[in-house]
Amino acid sequence: MPSSDVVVVAGGVGAARFLRALRLHDADAQVTAIVNTGDDTVVNGLHVSPDIDTVIYTLADAIDPVRGWGLRDETWTAMASLRRYAAAQVPGKYGGANGGGNAAHVNDWFNLGDRDLATHLYRTARLAAGATLHEVTAEIARAWGVRARLVPMSNDRVATRVVLDHDATAPDGRAYRAGDCVSFQEYFVRLRHAVAVRGIEFDGAAQAAALGLDELRDVGAVVIAPSNPLVSIGPVRALRGVDDALAARRDTVVGISPIVGGAALKGPADRMLRELGHEASALGVARLYAPICGAFVVDTVDAALRDDIESLGMRCIVTDTVMKDDRVGRALAATVLEAALGASR
Amino acid sequence: MPSSDVVVVAGGVGAARFLRALRLHDADAQVTAIVNTGDDTVVNGLHVSPDIDTVIYTLADAIDPVRGWGLRDETWTAMASLRRYAAAQVPGKYGGANGGGNAAHVNDWFNLGDRDLATHLYRTARLAAGATLHEVTAEIARAWGVRARLVPMSNDRVATRVVLDHDATAPDGRAYRAGDCVSFQEYFVRLRHAVAVRGIEFDGAAQAAALGLDELRDVGAVVIAPSNPLVSIGPVRALRGVDDALAARRDTVVGISPIVGGAALKGPADRMLRELGHEASALGVARLYAPICGAFVVDTVDAALRDDIESLGMRCIVTDTVMKDDRVGRALAATVLEAALGASR
Repeated sequence: MPSSDVVVVAGGVGAARFLRALRLHDADAQVTAIVNTGDDTVVNGLHVSPDIDTVIYTLADAIDPVRGWGLRDETWTAMASLRRYAAAQVPGKYGGANGGGNAAHVNDWFNLGDRDLATHLYRTARLAAGATLHEVTAEIARAWGVRARLVPMSNDRVATRVVLDHDATAPDGRAYRAGDCVSFQEYFVRLRHAVAVRGIEFDGAAQAAALGLDELRDVGAVVIAPSNPLVSIGPVRALRGVDDALAARRDTVVGISPIVGGAALKGPADRMLRELGHEASALGVARLYAPICGAFVVDTVDAALRDDIESLGMRCIVTDTVMKDDRVGRALAATVLEAALGASR
Repeated sequence: MPSSDVVVVAGGVGAARFLRALRLHDADAQVTAIVNTGDDTVVNGLHVSPDIDTVIYTLADAIDPVRGWGLRDETWTAMASLRRYAAAQVPGKYGGANGGGNAAHVNDWFNLGDRDLATHLYRTARLAAGATLHEVTAEIARAWGVRARLVPMSNDRVATRVVLDHDATAPDGRAYRAGDCVSFQEYFVRLRHAVAVRGIEFDGAAQAAALGLDELRDVGAVVIAPSNPLVSIGPVRALRGVDDALAARRDTVVGISPIVGGAALKGPADRMLRELGHEASALGVARLYAPICGAFVVDTVDAALRDDIESLGMRCIVTDTVMKDDRVGRALAATVLEAALGASR
């Protein structure tokens, strides 16, 4: 098989693993990843891009294999020291429904390792100097020896926010009310996604300019990575032009289900689907992707869903999708590329 | 002796040691330090207040005793990791007179330890949330158990800048030209103050509101700490109202010479005095302080300067000023307070 041009629409962990598998399968493939930045956040003054960093660290074989995020061999001195201040500030720590007190302004719950901090210091400094997020991302990727082209979905700020469906209290004591609209990280990290949501918003998406639209139109194959369809792929699709570009070349766009046997491999995708009125299954995801994907890849455990998925007008490919080792990953990458490129030949 | 109210006009290391000595001498003294913030800088997005931190860490007995700045038992993981990015960016690292390339935007020369980083993360977060530098400083001091009232000289930005007198190249290869006006930290840390200066500017001082003016007028004693008279005490004096307040109560203001036997105990004060047309001696400093100090304390090695200093209209007190141990520090504090309060009784 000749090396191929492929664009991967990517979130965090699942996408990072697929991108790594793609490289293992074909080291010479020209890979462009358009990465979700709806999770980006400013933590105590530092610009953090969680999905971009997960992709870079994974492709650099530097990701912590146990945590699944951040760097291996990490130390936590800065964050541990920060807690001195958070603890000293507020008599009734985080008292009240709105988390009164000064410590509420200080983020001591979004854990940043000392090595990881360097990435955020660098990104923050470069952005302050006028570089775009796209430029900075390329620089960080280069510093880690990553050859894939990493394109943030936009240089403009887009913030994924979720509306909580009921009252909830974070492990650190911060109380929330039903209807509160909170940042994705506040939901995902601080609340450990242990609360139902009733809505998702992509603040700024209407004004933001999508990056990578030309590639989405021109390359041989497009893959929607096995990421959360609502809060990882959703923000990319919310940008003007993305869904149109994908729909126009639907036959060579292949989606991979992040839901296997009705459950998310990682994170709250299954619950979120259910809470927002979708089916928590590969079929539920297929329905979301039917307008933009000509083919959809599901795990062998979901083989029985094939007819329902094909009735949506998509080819359904059944294979092992759980990348528990490199062999499975490589085979998945080969199958996915074949599905996309086969359609274009 | 009854416990006393005292204001100390303070820079970094010398002032911190004197403040510590003052506490050892009289644990019940009501001490207010008005601290220079002209050295404050934003390092990769984080607000750093070097003199304030040196004072807090010293009073908390947490300062690194060897380096004289930053925290003891410090680790340097974040900064070491940051160098990966700086090194990866620029083909001809820091090439050209203006330090071309992206790395020029990233500060990898202002060393921040991992524990120390927490202080800057906290300060940055609180300032971003609308707290004043005064409030944040009080919070950080409280977290370290510091009882002295620490007042930044202003909540407004004042930036000390120096004009270089000749071409120079920093150890990291960054080249400068004679006449370049650089931030104090660029001169002090990056160039290791190994270059002559021809001028000092306090950018923003004319617009900034001084803090602590009421205390400067009302308390029993004011001490000008043994700090660099030009770039540590100078910025405080450059603020509207400070010199007037001091001059109006000159009899109870005591200065301590930071120059002993013609040399600075630490830093470039002696060379700076010379380069800017002053005498690099306790007498040179006394001349700068004559308008605002009724008494001036010099080291025993400078006893011969007594007549010259008194001819400026100041009482001259000769004692051991090099705080090489707590006994000397305590005695110096007692002598200085006596000189100030004696005059008011």
